[in-house]
Amino acid sequence: MAEKKSVLVVGAGDALGGAIARRFAREGLAAVVIRREAERLSELAAQIRADGGEVHPFGVDARLEEPMVELFERIERDIAPLEAVVFNIGANVNFPIRDTTARVYRKVWEMAAFAGFLTGREAAKHMVPRGRGTIIFTGATASLRGGVGFSAFAGAKFALRALAQSLARELGPEGVHVAHTIIDGAIDTEWIATNFPQRYALKDQDGILNPDHIADAYWGLHAQPRDAWTHELDLRPWMETF
Amino acid sequence: MAEKKSVLVVGAGDALGGAIARRFAREGLAAVVIRREAERLSELAAQIRADGGEVHPFGVDARLEEPMVELFERIERDIAPLEAVVFNIGANVNFPIRDTTARVYRKVWEMAAFAGFLTGREAAKHMVPRGRGTIIFTGATASLRGGVGFSAFAGAKFALRALAQSLARELGPEGVHVAHTIIDGAIDTEWIATNFPQRYALKDQDGILNPDHIADAYWGLHAQPRDAWTHELDLRPWMETF
Amino acid sequence: MAEKKSVLVVGAGDALGGAIARRFAREGLAAVVIRREAERLSELAAQIRADGGEVHPFGVDARLEEPMVELFERIERDIAPLEAVVFNIGANVNFPIRDTTARVYRKVWEMAAFAGFLTGREAAKHMVPRGRGTIIFTGATASLRGGVGFSAFAGAKFALRALAQSLARELGPEGVHVAHTIIDGAIDTEWIATNFPQRYALKDQDGILNPDHIADAYWGLHAQPRDAWTHELDLRPWMETF
Amino acid sequence: MAEKKSVLVVGAGDALGGAIARRFAREGLAAVVIRREAERLSELAAQIRADGGEVHPFGVDARLEEPMVELFERIERDIAPLEAVVFNIGANVNFPIRDTTARVYRKVWEMAAFAGFLTGREAAKHMVPRGRGTIIFTGATASLRGGVGFSAFAGAKFALRALAQSLARELGPEGVHVAHTIIDGAIDTEWIATNFPQRYALKDQDGILNPDHIADAYWGLHAQPRDAWTHELDLRPWMETF
Repeated sequence: MAEKKSVLVVGAGDALGGAIARRFAREGLAAVVIRREAERLSELAAQIRADGGEVHPFGVDARLEEPMVELFERIERDIAPLEAVVFNIGANVNFPIRDTTARVYRKVWEMAAFAGFLTGREAAKHMVPRGRGTIIFTGATASLRGGVGFSAFAGAKFALRALAQSLARELGPEGVHVAHTIIDGAIDTEWIATNFPQRYALKDQDGILNPDHIADAYWGLHAQPRDAWTHELDLRPWMETF
Repeated sequence: MAEKKSVLVVGAGDALGGAIARRFAREGLAAVVIRREAERLSELAAQIRADGGEVHPFGVDARLEEPMVELFERIERDIAPLEAVVFNIGANVNFPIRDTTARVYRKVWEMAAFAGFLTGREAAKHMVPRGRGTIIFTGATASLRGGVGFSAFAGAKFALRALAQSLARELGPEGVHVAHTIIDGAIDTEWIATNFPQRYALKDQDGILNPDHIADAYWGLHAQPRDAWTHELDLRPWMETF
Repeated sequence: MAEKKSVLVVGAGDALGGAIARRFAREGLAAVVIRREAERLSELAAQIRADGGEVHPFGVDARLEEPMVELFERIERDIAPLEAVVFNIGANVNFPIRDTTARVYRKVWEMAAFAGFLTGREAAKHMVPRGRGTIIFTGATASLRGGVGFSAFAGAKFALRALAQSLARELGPEGVHVAHTIIDGAIDTEWIATNFPQRYALKDQDGILNPDHIADAYWGLHAQPRDAWTHELDLRPWMETF
Repeated sequence: MAEKKSVLVVGAGDALGGAIARRFAREGLAAVVIRREAERLSELAAQIRADGGEVHPFGVDARLEEPMVELFERIERDIAPLEAVVFNIGANVNFPIRDTTARVYRKVWEMAAFAGFLTGREAAKHMVPRGRGTIIFTGATASLRGGVGFSAFAGAKFALRALAQSLARELGPEGVHVAHTIIDGAIDTEWIATNFPQRYALKDQDGILNPDHIADAYWGLHAQPRDAWTHELDLRPWMETF
């Protein structure tokens, strides 16, 4: 009988994080899902359980070092060895530079880059000794280009991409697969439906990304044999301009 | 009953081209495989048939416009509509600039870029009216970086990448998926076994790329739903420095 | 008679910052030079004065918002309008990921990215209303590539590059020139002389960067007419591998 | 008395090539200017002579190997050692992929990439033994991005950039400075005036590139001390979107 294994999804509160957790749970991994408020994970947890999966929702602020260190230790001790870790916190804001407060600039970095660093480092600690595991960081168009008004968001996303590259180069030869995705387009979420109805209307023609399809791609990355690993993967709808 | 469909692999003579043809044939597509000398395709054809697949080997010089135009027309007319086209001709050479002859510079471009252009254009002609299809171009490390001695090879590979980008941006909104791969590492081939035995010895620890795994990734690209297409995909062994 | 103008060099404590300040002062700009400890700027100030230039050394921690806001206001009010601002703080550290403390990761970002954000924002506030000015950010090889052990440093440098791009795209059409440099190689400093003597020995054959030559390039960026602006400029010794 | 030196401008027929030749001639280099029809160089030659410069106009098709080899030999033998070589042939065309003829695809490559290869190789032959010299290749936005309709032009420009990189890495350590420029925007030419009058109207506000300013930047590249060389330089008007 195969040993139980776990996946951790940091930033499981949005449609994409949820889809990733469901997808990996369906493959038999115990899904540990975290966001700041645990109670807001109950619907996702119920879905995974209804699917026959194992789920462990926790309320953890991924920007805080000690709780993150403890989370990883607890998962490894009480649940199962981490086979995959997905960092999926975004913080998409746009302000003209003169209206970008220091508080916003710092918070966006803490959420989208510093929390990613803590996640990647703790994952490395547990995975490297085993010589296996997958770490995936979710990136965006702003990971590649600093557009107007994006000094904070692109700054954090560029930093996350640097982290992913640095980890891939250090941990790859240790047997740990580190990947970075570029999600280029609107994802099918409540938030897009509410705030960008015209954009959302493109859903009928597959013009926005289905979170389940992104999750399939993440699983695909995890499932790659180690002689043929992908480090960076872009995903966009067929009709998206790029 | 589903309509029969075909895949064309241009540059089916090497281990990778053969693996791609076998992989797509296994999914039920009629595999059209070409290289300059048709007779050298007989082993591959036999493998595909032994697997229960349909195969059509042709001797075509992919650098010649008319034979390529005719090939596409013949496939569409006599075999089945092209669902996927893979351009897989390499031409890896390395010379100091002062020893790079005009003949070599031109030939490498004709094989690795001009033939890619003919392939992409003819694929577009047949796929765009149907609003579907996949075109994949095989790239390399030299697609991203012009290293010492690589003026000819990187020149051709850069040009092929420009083609892939241009086609992706033009044909994506027409429903045709255009992808470009970056194969970064040695592939398990006779040629590597013979010429780089030390490198080849890494095979035992998955240190060189298995053509079948690359082929799986190509099929994965082709199978992506159109709301979540990848344009560029890198593949390298876990222990490869990059 | 021409109105007096000023240049601010943030991170004037190293050889490069000093050379930039001297270079711009020689062109007639009042040089405001800052680092955390004002007293360590006395030698630089003396050099500039001996050259016949005007200099204003201040001890300011560029990571603190209020002192930075006040610094810009004071320069504009008491010294001269800012014609150029150069952000030149580095924080080159290298640690394996598991040995990178949260404190180091955060500090490197605060020095090399957050301070850059404050500098760029305050510069924008004063330059945009005048529709002129130059802002230059000093980058490094790690601005383009996340190498092994560089999660903190490359993270900060990537973020700074995102900032430079975002500002260039927003402020260019407002008449403010934003540039980012890639310094790729060792600079002729005490620190290199002491810690990398073999490297330093290359100085005899121009194998390390002369800070005065980098400063010339910075002045060149500032002097570009607005119909032909450079955004990103790399500089490396002729013998440097890249 | 200083030894006479020469500069060769390949593609001296347009406004930019002419400006570069004038600029380098003003610095005292004998300017060898070539294009296919020598008679169309008479105005440029007259300008350089009126400026007090030395000029040698030749009709040479830069796509032909033998005439190019002979040109370099003749310059070195009869005029003066080549101190700088500028490759400045463009071939900007845009066609939907299905309307891009093989003839156009090939011709654009021959003009913008193959001729660049011949130029770079012959320059290397004469410069490397002396351990000095500058080779500059003119690039464009299409050197970095394959846009819709640009499979031929971007293909050639990508190839030229690969060449520039490969040469920089091989010849830099030999003392030869190889640079590549990204000209991102309309240049002040008859052709823009006639075909894009609205664009041309931006000239009043410095919205299009002045060829003399680009030429200044090229001279600046050539004049860089070898401890601080730039490989890639972008130039665009302040109001250009990028």
